[in-house]
Amino acid sequence: MTVEVIAIGGYEEVGKNMTAVKVGEDVIIFDMGIHLDRISIHEDTDIDRMHSLDLIERGVIPDDTLMKDVDGKVKGIVFSHGHLDHIGAVAKLAHRYDAPIIGTPYTTALIEKQIKGERKFKVNNPIRPLNPGSKIKLSKDITLEFVQSTHSIPQAVFPVLHTSEGIIVYALDFKFDNHQKVSPPPDYNRLRELGRKGVLALIVETTNAINYTETRTYSEKVARIILEDLMKRAFKGQKEGMIVTTFSSHIERIQTIADIAKDSNREILFLGRSMERFCGIAQNLGILKLPQNAYVYGSPKAVNKALMKAEDDRDQYLLVTTGHQGEPDALLPRIASARTPFNVKKGDNVIFSAPIIPNPTNAANRHILESKLKANGARIYANAHVSGHAGREDHRDFLRMLRPKHIIPAHGELEMLVAYGELAEEEGYRIGNNVHILRNAQAQVFNGD
Amino acid sequence: MTVEVIAIGGYEEVGKNMTAVKVGEDVIIFDMGIHLDRISIHEDTDIDRMHSLDLIERGVIPDDTLMKDVDGKVKGIVFSHGHLDHIGAVAKLAHRYDAPIIGTPYTTALIEKQIKGERKFKVNNPIRPLNPGSKIKLSKDITLEFVQSTHSIPQAVFPVLHTSEGIIVYALDFKFDNHQKVSPPPDYNRLRELGRKGVLALIVETTNAINYTETRTYSEKVARIILEDLMKRAFKGQKEGMIVTTFSSHIERIQTIADIAKDSNREILFLGRSMERFCGIAQNLGILKLPQNAYVYGSPKAVNKALMKAEDDRDQYLLVTTGHQGEPDALLPRIASARTPFNVKKGDNVIFSAPIIPNPTNAANRHILESKLKANGARIYANAHVSGHAGREDHRDFLRMLRPKHIIPAHGELEMLVAYGELAEEEGYRIGNNVHILRNAQAQVFNGD
Amino acid sequence: MTVEVIAIGGYEEVGKNMTAVKVGEDVIIFDMGIHLDRISIHEDTDIDRMHSLDLIERGVIPDDTLMKDVDGKVKGIVFSHGHLDHIGAVAKLAHRYDAPIIGTPYTTALIEKQIKGERKFKVNNPIRPLNPGSKIKLSKDITLEFVQSTHSIPQAVFPVLHTSEGIIVYALDFKFDNHQKVSPPPDYNRLRELGRKGVLALIVETTNAINYTETRTYSEKVARIILEDLMKRAFKGQKEGMIVTTFSSHIERIQTIADIAKDSNREILFLGRSMERFCGIAQNLGILKLPQNAYVYGSPKAVNKALMKAEDDRDQYLLVTTGHQGEPDALLPRIASARTPFNVKKGDNVIFSAPIIPNPTNAANRHILESKLKANGARIYANAHVSGHAGREDHRDFLRMLRPKHIIPAHGELEMLVAYGELAEEEGYRIGNNVHILRNAQAQVFNGD
Amino acid sequence: MTVEVIAIGGYEEVGKNMTAVKVGEDVIIFDMGIHLDRISIHEDTDIDRMHSLDLIERGVIPDDTLMKDVDGKVKGIVFSHGHLDHIGAVAKLAHRYDAPIIGTPYTTALIEKQIKGERKFKVNNPIRPLNPGSKIKLSKDITLEFVQSTHSIPQAVFPVLHTSEGIIVYALDFKFDNHQKVSPPPDYNRLRELGRKGVLALIVETTNAINYTETRTYSEKVARIILEDLMKRAFKGQKEGMIVTTFSSHIERIQTIADIAKDSNREILFLGRSMERFCGIAQNLGILKLPQNAYVYGSPKAVNKALMKAEDDRDQYLLVTTGHQGEPDALLPRIASARTPFNVKKGDNVIFSAPIIPNPTNAANRHILESKLKANGARIYANAHVSGHAGREDHRDFLRMLRPKHIIPAHGELEMLVAYGELAEEEGYRIGNNVHILRNAQAQVFNGD
Repeated sequence: MTVEVIAIGGYEEVGKNMTAVKVGEDVIIFDMGIHLDRISIHEDTDIDRMHSLDLIERGVIPDDTLMKDVDGKVKGIVFSHGHLDHIGAVAKLAHRYDAPIIGTPYTTALIEKQIKGERKFKVNNPIRPLNPGSKIKLSKDITLEFVQSTHSIPQAVFPVLHTSEGIIVYALDFKFDNHQKVSPPPDYNRLRELGRKGVLALIVETTNAINYTETRTYSEKVARIILEDLMKRAFKGQKEGMIVTTFSSHIERIQTIADIAKDSNREILFLGRSMERFCGIAQNLGILKLPQNAYVYGSPKAVNKALMKAEDDRDQYLLVTTGHQGEPDALLPRIASARTPFNVKKGDNVIFSAPIIPNPTNAANRHILESKLKANGARIYANAHVSGHAGREDHRDFLRMLRPKHIIPAHGELEMLVAYGELAEEEGYRIGNNVHILRNAQAQVFNGD
Repeated sequence: MTVEVIAIGGYEEVGKNMTAVKVGEDVIIFDMGIHLDRISIHEDTDIDRMHSLDLIERGVIPDDTLMKDVDGKVKGIVFSHGHLDHIGAVAKLAHRYDAPIIGTPYTTALIEKQIKGERKFKVNNPIRPLNPGSKIKLSKDITLEFVQSTHSIPQAVFPVLHTSEGIIVYALDFKFDNHQKVSPPPDYNRLRELGRKGVLALIVETTNAINYTETRTYSEKVARIILEDLMKRAFKGQKEGMIVTTFSSHIERIQTIADIAKDSNREILFLGRSMERFCGIAQNLGILKLPQNAYVYGSPKAVNKALMKAEDDRDQYLLVTTGHQGEPDALLPRIASARTPFNVKKGDNVIFSAPIIPNPTNAANRHILESKLKANGARIYANAHVSGHAGREDHRDFLRMLRPKHIIPAHGELEMLVAYGELAEEEGYRIGNNVHILRNAQAQVFNGD
Repeated sequence: MTVEVIAIGGYEEVGKNMTAVKVGEDVIIFDMGIHLDRISIHEDTDIDRMHSLDLIERGVIPDDTLMKDVDGKVKGIVFSHGHLDHIGAVAKLAHRYDAPIIGTPYTTALIEKQIKGERKFKVNNPIRPLNPGSKIKLSKDITLEFVQSTHSIPQAVFPVLHTSEGIIVYALDFKFDNHQKVSPPPDYNRLRELGRKGVLALIVETTNAINYTETRTYSEKVARIILEDLMKRAFKGQKEGMIVTTFSSHIERIQTIADIAKDSNREILFLGRSMERFCGIAQNLGILKLPQNAYVYGSPKAVNKALMKAEDDRDQYLLVTTGHQGEPDALLPRIASARTPFNVKKGDNVIFSAPIIPNPTNAANRHILESKLKANGARIYANAHVSGHAGREDHRDFLRMLRPKHIIPAHGELEMLVAYGELAEEEGYRIGNNVHILRNAQAQVFNGD
Repeated sequence: MTVEVIAIGGYEEVGKNMTAVKVGEDVIIFDMGIHLDRISIHEDTDIDRMHSLDLIERGVIPDDTLMKDVDGKVKGIVFSHGHLDHIGAVAKLAHRYDAPIIGTPYTTALIEKQIKGERKFKVNNPIRPLNPGSKIKLSKDITLEFVQSTHSIPQAVFPVLHTSEGIIVYALDFKFDNHQKVSPPPDYNRLRELGRKGVLALIVETTNAINYTETRTYSEKVARIILEDLMKRAFKGQKEGMIVTTFSSHIERIQTIADIAKDSNREILFLGRSMERFCGIAQNLGILKLPQNAYVYGSPKAVNKALMKAEDDRDQYLLVTTGHQGEPDALLPRIASARTPFNVKKGDNVIFSAPIIPNPTNAANRHILESKLKANGARIYANAHVSGHAGREDHRDFLRMLRPKHIIPAHGELEMLVAYGELAEEEGYRIGNNVHILRNAQAQVFNGD
């Protein structure tokens, strides 16, 4: 029986991840993501209402039309975690497959929201939550296991396929963080165990493979110290306002912000629809535990009302918002443009607990945002952040734990995939022999033992 | 009698240049420019209809309100050349001064257009064209001389004030180019002569002072060879389209493009309102000489009609357009977005004969522009361009010619002014002693001999 | 009575810091440092044996010859902390002044070592240790106070002059770190108190003023977490060797490394003459507390013997060495070149707990060092480090605490000084008015109240 | 019959190029170069006296030991041009093969010099000069043709193999320059003809593939204008000295320098052993034509004597030297360090007609060189240079001319090879399908028609 890894999306870009693994006649699909950058090129892209084929043509979602030539039956659509570049196309693509959607409880809850927002297609695939550490049989020959991982969103896992031909590990996206509060550390022991059993193929993310200076990704504990230092100084009797902006999906970070502000004299206001969505689900699942002085407001009306109060007593509130990339319609940019009841004033603190995701549009938006904030006298603390992706030395450890026979770098542009390839070569692998660089729509066939 | 140099605008930014020189009781103003970047921050800035004070507050035009505290009479408003960062605020500010507007014929023609477009103010200052090489007496003690210079626009000059206290040279903006077709070389002999007579103060641009690698700015002759190589290969029997985009004010470059395409089998279409404006004035003044096969279309209707023809027979036309910075409403970006009758097709050549003016908004716009062009299959030739500003070694020569007693670096952010200051130190000057770094609204007083 | 600040060295470079403050007839000198980069340009510079005037000519030490024109009497030579760019020229310059040397106990102990190594001059100035938080009267009108600061070396202080004309604060070099183990946090209360009393002038370092992204400098606590994460993983039953390289003067970091390795099964070997020098003094003064399993070896013979043991049982030792910049004769580069009994082998961990100090020679040396280490199979962890210099937002806080009337940026190249100047402008100051950019050998005069 | 391309060296680095092509039983080897960077890592590498296997281990020359497993007979060792990264290992490797050495007359003359300098091996392979445009039969099935190319050394060619299975083109290294004086333009017609006949495989250099801004490489004509502008200004009655430093192998550039200085009042002195070597051979072959006022001095004694004269009458001489990378023992660095009779004085002009070849050692050496030159008062004109390697759009044209079935990017690190691969994808190819990324020691097999 042969094993085939089919690169569908995310092998030529950071975004729209999708991979299929065919074992004999059975096919497992991993992730169905969107490509956010492509949307910013075409101003008129209305995802919720557009047809898959149009979105495929614009490069917004993976081109899975090649699946019609794959001679096999899809047994499961497996999601590694809940970021949009992994689940954002689910409502556009999943209905074509007669197979269940599988993810951790937090991930499947986000998928359900995604499906609810869809205006074009009906998506009726059964949804099967699976806990980290658990297994499920997907076909006679394939059992899926979720191994605990860590990332910048809760309940990220390494989906692992146990097949008669060997083990296949799908490792998009992860970091090795032993100090998160919301998530337990990665299950290193299980990873080593898998390595001893024999991993046939590793499909692995490469986000930071090209970063040669930060060799191990810092823990969230580092972000906590940085934020503490920034926020606590400002709490001490300051009359000025304070805004923190971060990813609404980054529950670990949101928990950290809440914990730091818990004993301050400020009310913590989490503002905006996506804050409400992500925090709400995380609270329901018991992942996020907000203190007494924290409030989440999602509707424009509630947000406006909260901002009005904050405008009058700015030293009584801590605002937590979206908009760190300067997206013109997100909350922080709207605040900076005086389009809300809250106005930034001289001395107000604005903490960016997020990186600048590097593309020219973000750079421009962020520049405009910071210019406006500064023009109003804000103090800006950029980059109070640590990455959610493994560094080169983390990847090296990962390879030493798993010792896969074959490696397929994924989740990036070509230069990132080959940077990972070179790292693998330092560990004794060889590009072209057992490290396989695929382009979208290419496949690699392995023979099991 | 004392001489005072008053920094009004352009000493903390690249843009909105304006400087006043007070000799005894008489004041001469140099340039009244706008700051284009500031407009892109505030989307709603409508220059033609806004009041000076609002524009001053937004940092779009120089803050000349300090002039009310200057105890003297303005005897002339002198313009060095016709770029918007030097003349763009004339219609907002000149009417406050009872003094003539003086510039070379090309510059004053552009100023007249500027005044005509103004919707808020009446500008009735007399306009006095003065030829390069000529002089005019502005007051009992002050004679103005225009010394021939070269830049990326025709009829750029060094305005020089001959006063009883010594000579003052205003050197914004220039390069040393001995091979332009449209403009004669700078009058080095006269500059050396001024040096021998004794220059009290030099006010000097610093655009490239911070660029330590390109030591002498390349001549336009270099741009000509580069463009020739690019364009002629494409002319040889190619069926594909060809677009060149450049500054509409850069008549030398436009002449070069026309000369190269003169003997080709293509019609040269200069397209867009600003192309029409700048080319028209230059043709009227005999500066630009377009060949038989060249046409200039300015009105939307005429441009559309021309584009329609070009769409059908793309190998019969060479399009010359604006839009090299990716400004969404300029012609090339509209073409790339399929908002005109002409569509870029596979293999079409797009030559950028302009730099990317470095700011985040341009970077984003240009990225989007190039993405769209490439998505349509265009071949892009970026940066077929040479700078219009003196390099470090050109500046060094300039200082050796003039040997001014005092130097005031201008036309840039602080880091550029001090980079020039360090260059002057290499030539024996000293920042703080005879190199004076001014901030907007600061002044420096000299005593003549 | 006037106050004059005289820039002697360190106002045009990072290195050879020296400043004089004249209050009436009395002069206080701050720091006498060397410029390490200049030595690497002239290969044949033998500092210990060269005369001051030769070293001045080569730009290695401050040019204090201008002091002969200063009409006043030197009452004290005050050292802010023990780094070589602040104390390295003491043995070349101090003997010319009939004045005591004053510093904290750790700083003066280092100065004594410096003087002992001198081969050219006799330095007999009395040495007066002064504790952080203490004061000493230097003349009728001047009292010196040492305010507790934090930096990357123990017992760094802000020397403060109390004069009849107002308070003068000398703030080279510092960070705001509330979490060091070896040093207490900066005395913020005293700084605020000084601000309320009225600071006439602040002389302030600018190392990180030009870094716009890291707005607050991370605490050493962050370095501790990073190092813990790196080292503890490696301790777990690894058979491979481990080397950490850091500054021998960075006692806080050395303490951290020792603390992390204290309970491991490895002996900690601090190796090399400068390790011995700095650790020895710090231990004698009770600053550094090494655990039972730590050993310091300084002589070549002892180092070799230790390396021999480590070569045989590499998993029993943790080596802490100098050489992070790749200096060819430092220990780590010699290890990498196989010039010692210890050889780097496949899998050995090499942790750089230091930045690359940015200059081309370091870049080249470091590149060669890393190439050799990698060729031997080492795993390299670059940049497990946090800066020892205040970030822009720390500086902003500092200005808000002190509210000085005048600011003199120091300790950097012109571009760094003006970057600080722009920061001060954001706080309401103005370059040219109350922010004074000095070049070496320039002076600024203030009048007290 | 199958065709196999075997990557021996230069597929993981810029340097030590070597490729074998096997057609049936016959093998053709292309180039045998050295890797200069590797030498600078190991200070003690003495190439002339070292054995091949030691040099292979240090990565200085290609590892051709894999050739013993290639089942075939080497019929020719073909050199594309005379740069050291293409011919530098000939004396270490060629004697192992019973096959002739083939190159253009200039290339073979340089190879002969190389062989003469060898101290370890006897190299007796017959040497067969072949002119550009000529052919030679190498075996029953293989004919070699040299197609005229252009590069930064004379008589660079595209070696082309005509085989029964199709045409194989070896395109290391080239640019498309239509305006060289010493070399005719590339033979575009023949390239197109080959394309029409059917190219099976293209092995192609990728030096500039990763440079996305300079889309077409500028012609040497551009370098000529830049140099003319720089040099002629300085000739006009200047009393100062003038030094130009460039590659001694870059005969086109040397010719240009000589042409510009021909009618000046200065004697042109080409100085140094390698200048003598390259100029001498080029003169003998009639490639270089030096004017009456030019002299070439190679021996240390002759160079010293010439420098002594130049020291006394610096305005009577133009010195042309090696040392642009700051190599400590080359002539210009020795001049800068005052180790020759000629000393750089205030105002002397130093023109770098060469790029900084980017590696950390060069950066450091060059920094030290420039620091010393500036300390002596020299005016430095950096980077009066154009590249010798094709830009992205030149490569695109090349692909459109040849339309090869298969492409093998070579001459670079992985990131350069894949950047070329992406360019090929824009032209309709696909990495993994017909663009083959090889690592050193990997091979790609094709089947002919």
